[in-house]
Amino acid sequence: MLETKIFVNKKPKLKNPICVVGLPGIGNIGRIAVGYMVHELKAKKFAELYSPYFFPFVMIHNNMIHTLRNEFYYCKIKGRDLILLIGDCQTYDPKGHYEVVGKILEFLKSFGCKNIITVGGFGTGKVSEKPKVYGAATDYEIIKNYKKYGINFDISGQIGTIVGASGLLVGLAKSYGMEGMVLLGETTGFPIITDPTAAEAVLKILEKILKIKIDLTKLDEKVKAMHEFIKKLEDIQRQAAEQMKKRKKSEELKYIG
Amino acid sequence: MLETKIFVNKKPKLKNPICVVGLPGIGNIGRIAVGYMVHELKAKKFAELYSPYFFPFVMIHNNMIHTLRNEFYYCKIKGRDLILLIGDCQTYDPKGHYEVVGKILEFLKSFGCKNIITVGGFGTGKVSEKPKVYGAATDYEIIKNYKKYGINFDISGQIGTIVGASGLLVGLAKSYGMEGMVLLGETTGFPIITDPTAAEAVLKILEKILKIKIDLTKLDEKVKAMHEFIKKLEDIQRQAAEQMKKRKKSEELKYIG
Amino acid sequence: MLETKIFVNKKPKLKNPICVVGLPGIGNIGRIAVGYMVHELKAKKFAELYSPYFFPFVMIHNNMIHTLRNEFYYCKIKGRDLILLIGDCQTYDPKGHYEVVGKILEFLKSFGCKNIITVGGFGTGKVSEKPKVYGAATDYEIIKNYKKYGINFDISGQIGTIVGASGLLVGLAKSYGMEGMVLLGETTGFPIITDPTAAEAVLKILEKILKIKIDLTKLDEKVKAMHEFIKKLEDIQRQAAEQMKKRKKSEELKYIG
Amino acid sequence: MLETKIFVNKKPKLKNPICVVGLPGIGNIGRIAVGYMVHELKAKKFAELYSPYFFPFVMIHNNMIHTLRNEFYYCKIKGRDLILLIGDCQTYDPKGHYEVVGKILEFLKSFGCKNIITVGGFGTGKVSEKPKVYGAATDYEIIKNYKKYGINFDISGQIGTIVGASGLLVGLAKSYGMEGMVLLGETTGFPIITDPTAAEAVLKILEKILKIKIDLTKLDEKVKAMHEFIKKLEDIQRQAAEQMKKRKKSEELKYIG
Repeated sequence: MLETKIFVNKKPKLKNPICVVGLPGIGNIGRIAVGYMVHELKAKKFAELYSPYFFPFVMIHNNMIHTLRNEFYYCKIKGRDLILLIGDCQTYDPKGHYEVVGKILEFLKSFGCKNIITVGGFGTGKVSEKPKVYGAATDYEIIKNYKKYGINFDISGQIGTIVGASGLLVGLAKSYGMEGMVLLGETTGFPIITDPTAAEAVLKILEKILKIKIDLTKLDEKVKAMHEFIKKLEDIQRQAAEQMKKRKKSEELKYIG
Repeated sequence: MLETKIFVNKKPKLKNPICVVGLPGIGNIGRIAVGYMVHELKAKKFAELYSPYFFPFVMIHNNMIHTLRNEFYYCKIKGRDLILLIGDCQTYDPKGHYEVVGKILEFLKSFGCKNIITVGGFGTGKVSEKPKVYGAATDYEIIKNYKKYGINFDISGQIGTIVGASGLLVGLAKSYGMEGMVLLGETTGFPIITDPTAAEAVLKILEKILKIKIDLTKLDEKVKAMHEFIKKLEDIQRQAAEQMKKRKKSEELKYIG
Repeated sequence: MLETKIFVNKKPKLKNPICVVGLPGIGNIGRIAVGYMVHELKAKKFAELYSPYFFPFVMIHNNMIHTLRNEFYYCKIKGRDLILLIGDCQTYDPKGHYEVVGKILEFLKSFGCKNIITVGGFGTGKVSEKPKVYGAATDYEIIKNYKKYGINFDISGQIGTIVGASGLLVGLAKSYGMEGMVLLGETTGFPIITDPTAAEAVLKILEKILKIKIDLTKLDEKVKAMHEFIKKLEDIQRQAAEQMKKRKKSEELKYIG
Repeated sequence: MLETKIFVNKKPKLKNPICVVGLPGIGNIGRIAVGYMVHELKAKKFAELYSPYFFPFVMIHNNMIHTLRNEFYYCKIKGRDLILLIGDCQTYDPKGHYEVVGKILEFLKSFGCKNIITVGGFGTGKVSEKPKVYGAATDYEIIKNYKKYGINFDISGQIGTIVGASGLLVGLAKSYGMEGMVLLGETTGFPIITDPTAAEAVLKILEKILKIKIDLTKLDEKVKAMHEFIKKLEDIQRQAAEQMKKRKKSEELKYIG
C-alpha cells in the first residue's frame, strides 16, 4: 500500500447520507459514542480503511490477528441514510492525517454525502457531572442550523485548536462540497481512557440532530466491554511509539517476526 | 489529500498576469504587504491551497474553524492582471516546500503567468528608519530590468541563502517558463512579528514595478488588525511544533478531538 | 525509484500457487528456513524487489556490489506451485512496511495466489531444546484448517503484536483476496543471529502443510554458510542506522562515494 | 514538485552513449573530475535535475540566485557519445537517494544508454602520493572487461559499503537494463574538500576506458576555481542541516524570506 486505501466489501446505495465519525481521542468519546450507535442501530459494515501511516504491526486479540483500521458502517434512519465511521487509531504522522482525511472525504463524496459530524472530546481538567457539548464549524450558517440542539458554540478563548482527523475532516469538508461540524464532549482529560458520561451527552445531541431514538440504558455495560480492547489498542500503540524511539536510539535493528 | 491541492472556486480569465507572493516569514513583511494589497486593490479570492505538509490541526478563531491555507486573489491593474498569493503558513517539512512551490508554479503557468515576485524580509539585527529593499534573481537580465526601481541587488556577502517557498518559487520559476525576483525588506529580525515600515518600503517599490498607486495611509492601522491573527497563527504553530516534539518524546499517544 | 518496485526477469505461469515468506527477523528463522527451501527444492529466481525504504547503500561482498533486496523464487510441488520469498532486509521506516507489503500482495495476486504463509520467530528469552511453532491468522476458519499440523494457535497473553512485514502480509492478505497465516518458531531471542533448531521445527510443519519432503540433514551446514552473509547484512545495517543518527547529530554532511 | 524532476532544455540525439557521473562526496573527487571533463571536452548542458529531497533553499552566489541541482551534459567522443552528470548535492534523506537514482536511470535509458560509470572517493585516513583507483561492479563480467585499465577490484575487507547515489546508480543499473561500475579514487578523507590528485588518478583511468585524451595540465588551476563554490555549497548545506536540527529543537518556527 503506497497510500491510505479503502477496501469496499459491497458498495451500498445510500440516500442523502449523513456521516458521523468517532475516532480515538481524548476520553475516546467519539469512539465509544459512535461505536455504541453501530451496535444499537445494528449498522452494517461495508468498508475498511488501512493506512501506511498506522503503526506497522498486527495485534493479537482473542488468539486472532487484528490489523489496525477504520471501519465504515451504514444504516437506514428516518428519510435518509446514516454512515458511521469508527476506528482503532489515528495516524502517528502529521502528514498522515491529511491523507486519511482526504481519502475519507472523497469516499463520502462518492455516496453523495453532504454532511459530516465528527465527535471528539474537550479535556477541561475538571470533573463535570453534567458534561456540556461544544460545537465548532467553518461557517456561521452551519452554527445557526445546529444551535437549537443545545450545543455550545461559544468556544473562542476556551479551545485554540482541534488536532487530528476530527478537526481536519470538518475543516476540509467545504473544499469537497460538504458541510461539517465537530461535536466535543466535555471531559476531564487524561488519564481516563473511556468516558461514558461525556459520550452519553453527545449521543443525546445526536439523537436530536438525526431525529432518532437511541436506547442509552446499555451504554455503561457496552462501554465496559469496549474498554478492554480500546485500552489494549492504546497500550500497544504507546509501546510501539516507545519502541520506534528506542530503535532510533538503540544500535540494533530488531524485528519480531 | 495525498498531496498539496489547490481548490479553485471559479477560474478567472486573466490577461498576461503577474503574481506577487506574500507568505509568512521574518517580520511577516510579505504577508502584510501583499495582504494590504489584497485589501486596498479589492482583489477577489479565487482559489485556496491546502497541504499535507501544513500542521494537522484546525484553529478556532472568532468561534469558527479556520484551516491553515494559502489563498489566491486577483485584480485588474493597468493593462494586465495581478495575482496576489498570501498564506497562513509555510510547510513544516523541507520536502513540503518543493511540493507547494511546484503546485503554485504549475497553477500560475496554467494562467499564462510569466512573472513572479515574492516578498520577504532580510533580518539585519539592526533597527533602520529607512529600510532598504534588496533583490535577488536567477538571471542578470532580470536584475537589469528591475534595477531602476531602487532595489539593491548587491547582496553577495550579506545574504547567503533564502530559505523556504519565497526563494524556491523564484529559483525554480525558470524551469516552469517564468521569470522571477525576490524582494526582501530590511528588518531587524526577531522578535518583531509584523514590521509595517519594511512592508511600506517594499510596497513603494511594488507601486513602481506594477505602475499602480497604493494608498499607504491606512497601512499601520490595517497591520495592527492583521497582527493579532498572525500572532495567533505563529503561537499556535509554535505550540504544535513543541507538541510534536513532546509527543515524540513522551510515552503517550494523545489527540485532542 | 519513487516507490518499491518489483523487477521481473521472466514471469512464470504458476498453477494455484502458495507463497511462503522468509524475511529477516528474530533469530532469522524465516530467512534461513525459506532460504534452505530455495536451496533444497532448487527453486528458480524470477523477480527482485527493491525499495526506497531500504538503506541507501550498496554492500561489497566477495569483491562484488550487492544491492539490498527481496527475491522471489518458484518451484513445482505436488499438484500446485510454490512461491518462495526471501530477503536481505525489511524497511527501516514504518511506512515502508505497508508499501512493501502492498506491492508483494498485489504481485502475488497477479499469479492467482490465494495462500500466504509467513515465517518468523517468537523470542521467549528461554532456551528450548524442542522449540514449539506458534501460529496466528485473521480468521477462525484458517486456524481450523491448519490446527492438525501441530501448530500452537493459543497465543493470546503470550504474543501482543507481530511487527513488520511478516505480520502485515497476513493481516492485509484478506483485503487482497488471499488467506494467510504467520508461523513463529520459538527461539531465545537476541543476540542469536541464526537459530537452525527453530528453523527446523518450522520446516517440519511446512513439510506437512505443503505435503512435501525436505531433506533436513544439510540444514546445519547450510545455515553456517548463510550465517556469515546474514551477520554482515545485520552489522552493516546497524552501522548505517547509527551513521544516520550521527549524521543527524553531527554538523557535517558526509558521503562515501 | 511532488517528486524529483528532470527539466530538459533540448533533448539531444545520442549515439550509444556512456554516462560518467560525478556527484559530491568524500574529497569531491567525482565532482571535480567530471566537472573538469565538462570543461575540457566543452560538453553542452541539456538537462537539469531538481529534487524535493535537496535542501529547501536557494543560495546567493555572485549576486545571483543559485538553486541546488544536478546537471546533464553531453559531448561527442570517438565513435560514441558521452553523457556527463555533475551535481551540487546529494539528497539529505535516505529515501531520496533511491528516487533520484531511479529518475536518472530512467532518463539515461530513454537515450539508449547501456553503460554508467560513477566516480567517488575512498577515504583511507592516509596520505598517498600516488593514489590508487578502486573499482566495484555487480557482475564478474564487468570486472573482467575493465581490469586491464589498472583498476583495483580487490576491495572486500577494505570497503564495506558505498553510500548514496554513486553506489546505488551502479547497484540498480542492471534492473534498468544497464551495466555499471563505481570508480573510487584513494584519498585521505576529511577534512579535505577537494582532492585534485585523486581526481587526476581517476581521470587517467577514464581516458583509457573512454579512449579519449584529456589535457590535465589545467586541472589544479581549475580545481582551485571550483573549490570556492564547492566549499560554499558544503558550508551552506552543513548550516542548513544544523538549522533543521535546531528548528526541531527550538521552540520557534522561523523562516528567512
